[in-house]
Amino acid sequence: MKLSGVMPPMATPFQDGKLAPEKLKENFKRWNKTDLSGYLVLGSNGEAVYLNDKEKTKTVEISRESIPASKIMLVGTGMESTEETIRFTNQVAKMGADCALVVTPSYFKGSMKPQILYDHFVAVAESSRIGILIYNVPQFTGINLEPEWVARLSEHSNIIGVKDSSGNIGQLSEVIRLSRKGFAVFVGSAPVFFPALCVGAVGGILAVANVVPQECVRIQNLFEEKKFDEARGLQGQLTPLAGAVTTKYGIGGLKMAMDLAGYFGGNPRPPLKRPDKNTEEELKRLLLTFSSFSSGSSRR
Amino acid sequence: MKLSGVMPPMATPFQDGKLAPEKLKENFKRWNKTDLSGYLVLGSNGEAVYLNDKEKTKTVEISRESIPASKIMLVGTGMESTEETIRFTNQVAKMGADCALVVTPSYFKGSMKPQILYDHFVAVAESSRIGILIYNVPQFTGINLEPEWVARLSEHSNIIGVKDSSGNIGQLSEVIRLSRKGFAVFVGSAPVFFPALCVGAVGGILAVANVVPQECVRIQNLFEEKKFDEARGLQGQLTPLAGAVTTKYGIGGLKMAMDLAGYFGGNPRPPLKRPDKNTEEELKRLLLTFSSFSSGSSRR
Amino acid sequence: MKLSGVMPPMATPFQDGKLAPEKLKENFKRWNKTDLSGYLVLGSNGEAVYLNDKEKTKTVEISRESIPASKIMLVGTGMESTEETIRFTNQVAKMGADCALVVTPSYFKGSMKPQILYDHFVAVAESSRIGILIYNVPQFTGINLEPEWVARLSEHSNIIGVKDSSGNIGQLSEVIRLSRKGFAVFVGSAPVFFPALCVGAVGGILAVANVVPQECVRIQNLFEEKKFDEARGLQGQLTPLAGAVTTKYGIGGLKMAMDLAGYFGGNPRPPLKRPDKNTEEELKRLLLTFSSFSSGSSRR
Amino acid sequence: MKLSGVMPPMATPFQDGKLAPEKLKENFKRWNKTDLSGYLVLGSNGEAVYLNDKEKTKTVEISRESIPASKIMLVGTGMESTEETIRFTNQVAKMGADCALVVTPSYFKGSMKPQILYDHFVAVAESSRIGILIYNVPQFTGINLEPEWVARLSEHSNIIGVKDSSGNIGQLSEVIRLSRKGFAVFVGSAPVFFPALCVGAVGGILAVANVVPQECVRIQNLFEEKKFDEARGLQGQLTPLAGAVTTKYGIGGLKMAMDLAGYFGGNPRPPLKRPDKNTEEELKRLLLTFSSFSSGSSRR
Repeated sequence: MKLSGVMPPMATPFQDGKLAPEKLKENFKRWNKTDLSGYLVLGSNGEAVYLNDKEKTKTVEISRESIPASKIMLVGTGMESTEETIRFTNQVAKMGADCALVVTPSYFKGSMKPQILYDHFVAVAESSRIGILIYNVPQFTGINLEPEWVARLSEHSNIIGVKDSSGNIGQLSEVIRLSRKGFAVFVGSAPVFFPALCVGAVGGILAVANVVPQECVRIQNLFEEKKFDEARGLQGQLTPLAGAVTTKYGIGGLKMAMDLAGYFGGNPRPPLKRPDKNTEEELKRLLLTFSSFSSGSSRR
Repeated sequence: MKLSGVMPPMATPFQDGKLAPEKLKENFKRWNKTDLSGYLVLGSNGEAVYLNDKEKTKTVEISRESIPASKIMLVGTGMESTEETIRFTNQVAKMGADCALVVTPSYFKGSMKPQILYDHFVAVAESSRIGILIYNVPQFTGINLEPEWVARLSEHSNIIGVKDSSGNIGQLSEVIRLSRKGFAVFVGSAPVFFPALCVGAVGGILAVANVVPQECVRIQNLFEEKKFDEARGLQGQLTPLAGAVTTKYGIGGLKMAMDLAGYFGGNPRPPLKRPDKNTEEELKRLLLTFSSFSSGSSRR
Repeated sequence: MKLSGVMPPMATPFQDGKLAPEKLKENFKRWNKTDLSGYLVLGSNGEAVYLNDKEKTKTVEISRESIPASKIMLVGTGMESTEETIRFTNQVAKMGADCALVVTPSYFKGSMKPQILYDHFVAVAESSRIGILIYNVPQFTGINLEPEWVARLSEHSNIIGVKDSSGNIGQLSEVIRLSRKGFAVFVGSAPVFFPALCVGAVGGILAVANVVPQECVRIQNLFEEKKFDEARGLQGQLTPLAGAVTTKYGIGGLKMAMDLAGYFGGNPRPPLKRPDKNTEEELKRLLLTFSSFSSGSSRR
Repeated sequence: MKLSGVMPPMATPFQDGKLAPEKLKENFKRWNKTDLSGYLVLGSNGEAVYLNDKEKTKTVEISRESIPASKIMLVGTGMESTEETIRFTNQVAKMGADCALVVTPSYFKGSMKPQILYDHFVAVAESSRIGILIYNVPQFTGINLEPEWVARLSEHSNIIGVKDSSGNIGQLSEVIRLSRKGFAVFVGSAPVFFPALCVGAVGGILAVANVVPQECVRIQNLFEEKKFDEARGLQGQLTPLAGAVTTKYGIGGLKMAMDLAGYFGGNPRPPLKRPDKNTEEELKRLLLTFSSFSSGSSRR
């Protein structure tokens, strides 16, 4: 299995506020028909921070059953505490995850100096039975791990990649330039997916890939076929939708767009909310720019 | 019981990485001899983010046994999810907490608009069996709740106060000016404790009060006796120590200073670390500016 | 002459886009009847960045004629270049200024390390024929000079004070605590004027003092008479107006409020604009909370 | 003349603190032998903020004499005041500038709302005898002009392009996508020159092009020949030097590197300083990665 390509940070479906395993299975059934290379389970967009331990376990279980062996199963396991991160990483390893995504701890921002973060990632990597990827997401954590530190961590044989969601292409370029050859650098921000590929990213872990997976894959395919103008054009279509389902309307918007695209989205957990009717109209319009949604009925 | 005065956000002691109930009891025994008005259990400085559910329950249990009825028992119960916050608040209520401190949820910063936060706090307040205080701590959460929104929330009969740790005295003044009379405004930043009292704060929830509780109380006493120059002078002595045990050396520094002051501090949980020998020397020097530590042996 | 008390950063009047010397003289006539301790000429609120060399010279000239010897004449002379700052400081010295306010250079933010700023201020102080005050205004410059560096600069015999407009009372306290005795620390943010006095500021250089000079002076008088509750109450009245004429509506709002208060305000220079009618109504309402404007007609 | 390609924001040479016209002419002589498409005179890196009116005029004069008609002469003319910006733009137009670069005014950050900036640029464009480019440089100004506003401005026939120095490739993509066809979008940040070309930028205005002009041009040539891997490789060589002569060592570093590369760099004006010997060694090493400096002596 090659660590590359497009993966959605899988949204976690709820019905009446409860985890909805059947809905998740249905979503997987449709996603599996696309060329997504894998899935991130329990990512930020999976509302991992709103799930209790039991719900997390259940979500991993269903995902393991639903994800074919040919696709990557990456699971978000980062906690504030080093020990808890190790414990949970090994739990999901035992449950069959291929690799784990470990976010920078961040609550005590002032104390999270680079060396502290470095030691944390090394400690987790040393004790983890599966390979880990670093998750750098300053817009959520208020912490940025600089390229030279990611590069140092890339030398550890059990640290196999990074998801950089900063949206900073200069930084991504430096991560790629400075890291060891073969280190898997994913971009986590859809509006810069195409430029990220240009500077050498191996793929994208993109919220919007929950909604329009094949369109995201197509950008990468076009790029690899050196059809740059087409790739750039498709990126231009993707950007407004990507902005809407993350920055602008958050997970509520993402789930609403999933509903419009024929997946089960449903409501996010409070304090998050489902957006209003106006947003629904805007999301419909944004989806219609894609051919798969513009001819007569949408794919539903 | 009057909601006012000085409370420490109680540090949680560990031995060999495990929760150390006996050490916590010993600390309480000494703190109880001072004029602290109460305690914040499971606050940021209590490393709540590093405790699992069982450890949290145990910590609340020991605290309830150790805190006399004459002192306030405030417990940090804020989670990212509204539902989980309510569940945990009512759990600690049943265990005997007097009131709960609820931090602004913050993981999805971009989505945490004022109205979302407002609805969250109201939902928690509606369902909580004990009064709640809002916890505004932008340096950890990346979220700031503006005075006009705190004021609106102060109108709810079950929202009884706020801990503002922004360090922004202009903001604190506005919170006090705009909130309903009787709403308990605590400052959460020791370097501005004296000016906070000047603008009308009812007290302080101060990390450094784990180390020098009586000195903190004394600032408020001097202020209330209108001995402003003395209060300001003592604040000047407190500020460098307060900066060291929070901003500069974090919880590792706080716990080291507790050890030096005769309490049990011990090590924080990784990724946090105990500072080195140089820091110890610096902390010793800072403690010596206080008379209780400068005469011969320290209080130990 | 004692360096203390309330000074307005004097607004510069324009008519048909041209400097209006007569209007400035009229304003001075009224201000001089109050207990303002002096004036800041060519400050930020004086739109110094919109004046050419000739206009600056003319403004200083008129100010010198209009300001009585009993009041302080402080002139803003800071430029990006060290040499130009020295040249202009000595020019206004020759024209009769009592002292000069020198802003931190800031265009090349990344290069403005503390030592660079230190050397700049020392160079200016060495060559200046009049005493200089440091001007720290992060919200305009993006640069903050830390208390320990202000304190080091306070040791220079020709650096006689600082105007700190950060609004950060913790920082102001530290500046006062660490600087040499006699160093004049002014606060430059009206919403924290009262707490600034509490922590030891000698006075305020306040935009809103262009509009309600005597009310600002009164806060300081009440404070000095130890009438803290009254001082705090008056501060509570001042804060909304102060916020409106700076943060909220900028210099356009300040000048509109001056017009409403019976001074000549007029229009700011483009790109700044005069606010609309709604703002005028809001400003009127805010002025009416002051007794001097609430009886009979508002325009005295 | 096509508005595209690589231009250096020309450094302004001083000797003994005075403008050094002969040195500037010598620099031009060498730069003119390269394939630079033009020059930015009086840009940020030209230390425009340290030049008085006379020096600015002299610099424009010499530049006009030295720049061949086949190359673009772009002059920085943005001031805080709208009127002064218009006046100076028309002055340089009369002196022969091809077009003008107008920075967002920024001193009163809080007042510089998008509409205010929009009106400023339109007013300047209306009155200017030459085409203007918008200069967006948040790291110096603290102001960011959002893509939708740049796009609106691109509809004005006399606003012909933008230099975006934010380093934000997502933003640059959106500017290109939303602006009118033919609007010249330059990137102003060398570490993202290659990705900027990938998303459709027409060229770069790059500080490091003062030092290694032909290498910068070569990145664009390789890109246009679709030799992406080579272009990306050369970018990887350029990035560390580019970081050193801007972010890390500022204009002092830039001028030192120019000296090492055989141009006249000299000292920046105080408060800026020439870096120390260690920096010189580092800059030498960084230059040696380029073939033109690695054979024989480094000073060509």
